[in-house]
Amino acid sequence: MKSSQIKVSELGEKQLIERIIQKSKSCSIYKPSDFSYFDIKTSIGDDSALTNVNMDDNSYLVSSSDMMIQSSHFPKAMTYFQMGYKSVVVNVSDLASMGAENIGFLLNIAIPKDTLLDDFDELICGVIQACDYYNIPLIGGDTNEANEIIISGTAIGQVDKEKALMKYGFEIGDLLCISGDLGLAALGFELLKLKENPNDEIIEKIKSIDSTLIDLAILKALKPEAKYEKGHILRDYNTNNNRITTTDITDGLASELYEILNSDRKHHKEDSYEKGIRIYEGNLPVEEEFKEIAKVLGLDYLDLFFHIGEDFELLFTINKELKDQLSNEMNYYIIGEITDKNTVEIVLSNGTIEKISSRGYQHLK
Amino acid sequence: MKSSQIKVSELGEKQLIERIIQKSKSCSIYKPSDFSYFDIKTSIGDDSALTNVNMDDNSYLVSSSDMMIQSSHFPKAMTYFQMGYKSVVVNVSDLASMGAENIGFLLNIAIPKDTLLDDFDELICGVIQACDYYNIPLIGGDTNEANEIIISGTAIGQVDKEKALMKYGFEIGDLLCISGDLGLAALGFELLKLKENPNDEIIEKIKSIDSTLIDLAILKALKPEAKYEKGHILRDYNTNNNRITTTDITDGLASELYEILNSDRKHHKEDSYEKGIRIYEGNLPVEEEFKEIAKVLGLDYLDLFFHIGEDFELLFTINKELKDQLSNEMNYYIIGEITDKNTVEIVLSNGTIEKISSRGYQHLK
Repeated sequence: MKSSQIKVSELGEKQLIERIIQKSKSCSIYKPSDFSYFDIKTSIGDDSALTNVNMDDNSYLVSSSDMMIQSSHFPKAMTYFQMGYKSVVVNVSDLASMGAENIGFLLNIAIPKDTLLDDFDELICGVIQACDYYNIPLIGGDTNEANEIIISGTAIGQVDKEKALMKYGFEIGDLLCISGDLGLAALGFELLKLKENPNDEIIEKIKSIDSTLIDLAILKALKPEAKYEKGHILRDYNTNNNRITTTDITDGLASELYEILNSDRKHHKEDSYEKGIRIYEGNLPVEEEFKEIAKVLGLDYLDLFFHIGEDFELLFTINKELKDQLSNEMNYYIIGEITDKNTVEIVLSNGTIEKISSRGYQHLK
Repeated sequence: MKSSQIKVSELGEKQLIERIIQKSKSCSIYKPSDFSYFDIKTSIGDDSALTNVNMDDNSYLVSSSDMMIQSSHFPKAMTYFQMGYKSVVVNVSDLASMGAENIGFLLNIAIPKDTLLDDFDELICGVIQACDYYNIPLIGGDTNEANEIIISGTAIGQVDKEKALMKYGFEIGDLLCISGDLGLAALGFELLKLKENPNDEIIEKIKSIDSTLIDLAILKALKPEAKYEKGHILRDYNTNNNRITTTDITDGLASELYEILNSDRKHHKEDSYEKGIRIYEGNLPVEEEFKEIAKVLGLDYLDLFFHIGEDFELLFTINKELKDQLSNEMNYYIIGEITDKNTVEIVLSNGTIEKISSRGYQHLK
């Protein structure tokens, strides 16, 4: 097929971002080396960009920018307050997963002309309260008109060069960990769908299993939080010996597992690359009630864990020597390890081993 | 009218931004003083945010973020390349008007699913070539899906604290200047409208006046440039004696004149504020052909100068002692002065004096 007939939906979000990285070399009028004033550590690809600024020799400037569009990012049940709040959370989460301290937040917002001022105020209050909570002042931005709500946020921070939490750099035998419960936001989205098309029988059934879990899942879907403090703890422990690598789980665990492997492969200097990941189902933090509710909804609970994101938990690897020391500092779960086998696999509770596919959620796909 | 019935369109862009600044105090869960880690010089209000970062005592971090939406910001004739290019220009212009050195650019983009990959590539090439031209590396961002093209760009830079070009701080007698020709982009937009609904008689008439001017005006509307070098020259001359204040003209000259007066009033420490602005029509850089074309199009050429923006020229004030020295460094036009009379007025060529109204272009109005 000729390039001229291909639509962007055939590539999807991640391939398009790869394409932008390629274009930044191929369609540049200068050679990339002409950007001599600032040295960019990782231009695009990690959770946030790290930029070497002449201001200071010890810190990187860290920046992250994310756009959210009502029809694809906000469930119908989400309030204006929650939309504003989430626009800060997604960006702070990217900074947290680099171990960065927050500096400032820029808010670009587009809203329909007939939006009620009260709703606008509520959205802004969501932004402000999230900025307060994560100690990141709102420093700028603009407002525009569109036919649906669009929020584009940019978070700026800084991190010690020696301590920045990259996606790459783990070694065979390192432990694979998550900072908290996965799958709850995913379950929440499913429950919200059910609310929109109610089925009384199913609703009664799942309520009888665990109504607290239901409320919690919906809350996680509508008002997620960034794992800011845990990001800072991991950063403080990130010495050469401990070699911590970190990313935040936004597109589903499976997709992030492939992300960290790809990132590590890119930074690998030798010819052959033989690292892989093994997850143990038995290690996944999951309550029986969670599995039961998923079953009533006709879902495989592992799908909720692996293929839908939005939990904003951190996925990280540590040298196994660090295990106990880190447990004294924060709660986390060890769910697997880095192997010397170039696959991403899960050891199921029944003993069988299955490959994990990379499909997480991608826009435009 | 109760707040609950008011729509955002009744306030418009500038009042909404004021409202965000208010909310950042009133709906904060902490007191603003709790943001103690970083000192923000001007949170929102100037062209870019200046943030006091602990990295370095001599520089502010400068950041600017702008969202552009196909239906309101891009004329139909604009190519994908030009859309991408402009998304960089608007943000670099905000940095230039603070005198900042560029550090990096973040690109958030949303496109319809059925966008051709070739068009996507062209848009990205526009972004990259503008980044090259202004020496601002693309360091991050994301891609999304929407039903029209939305580009949200964020530019990050830095500036010496002593030299930052604010909007405020001019004194009575200071000269009001612009960095280059105004009104051309505005004329270009009108010509593009004419192309969409062609009237052969009018087209023939204006072509016979000056076809080069027509091409130039359309180019200025479709591919504007930021006044990057001039921003840096002004910054280098910005000592206490020279007291240069600067903004970029994005929403029309009239609107910016009121902006700088409002900004100066806010930073004025005494009770009464008695500064004003006087423009001299005879000093405006305008060719006879420009006036003639405007007339054929049924427009007042002064409206093109004052009430439509997008030229991205710099509007600045200087101590009149600096006049000759600055002329050796760069081309600029002195169009008026700061008066001791609290009005914004124009002395027309026929000698009469008229008030200039503030209406520039505002979104959501």
